Amino acid sequence: MLVADVQIRLKKGVADPEGKNTKKALELLGFSQVAEVKTSKYFSIHLDTDDEALAKIEVEKMCQSLLANPVINDYSYEFRHLSD
Amino acid sequence: MLVADVQIRLKKGVADPEGKNTKKALELLGFSQVAEVKTSKYFSIHLDTDDEALAKIEVEKMCQSLLANPVINDYSYEFRHLSD
Repeated sequence: MLVADVQIRLKKGVADPEGKNTKKALELLGFSQVAEVKTSKYFSIHLDTDDEALAKIEVEKMCQSLLANPVINDYSYEFRHLSD
Repeated sequence: MLVADVQIRLKKGVADPEGKNTKKALELLGFSQVAEVKTSKYFSIHLDTDDEALAKIEVEKMCQSLLANPVINDYSYEFRHLSD
């Protein structure tokens, strides 16, 4: 079994209100060294295959058709093998 | 400048409706090899320090006091150095 760890980030320049509010909240809690907080989303997709070449094609399609919004998101992924 | 990459996961056994719905949507799109989808949240926290020992103490506190909910979340983090 293969697991694809897909990270969906906001593109540079796209507003990240959750990150900004997290930074504010950390400052209010007394963490003074926080310069910036960026948030992103993570999908761990377990696949019923061990064919990494095929999985790469599929995961690329998943990102383009569902997981990422091409207007605001960048994405990257890596694979790891999971023993059943 | 140090960046802490903090990953907030759902604990084993905690329901992940977003993951389940993502799996359903992928199946509807024709991806038949998806066995499971797990979601998690990612914070990249830029810190005005190069002291990794100190940063570790601070980030641990951030996770416990704000970023993670100890009832439902596990968390992990790693550090990378960023050139200014």
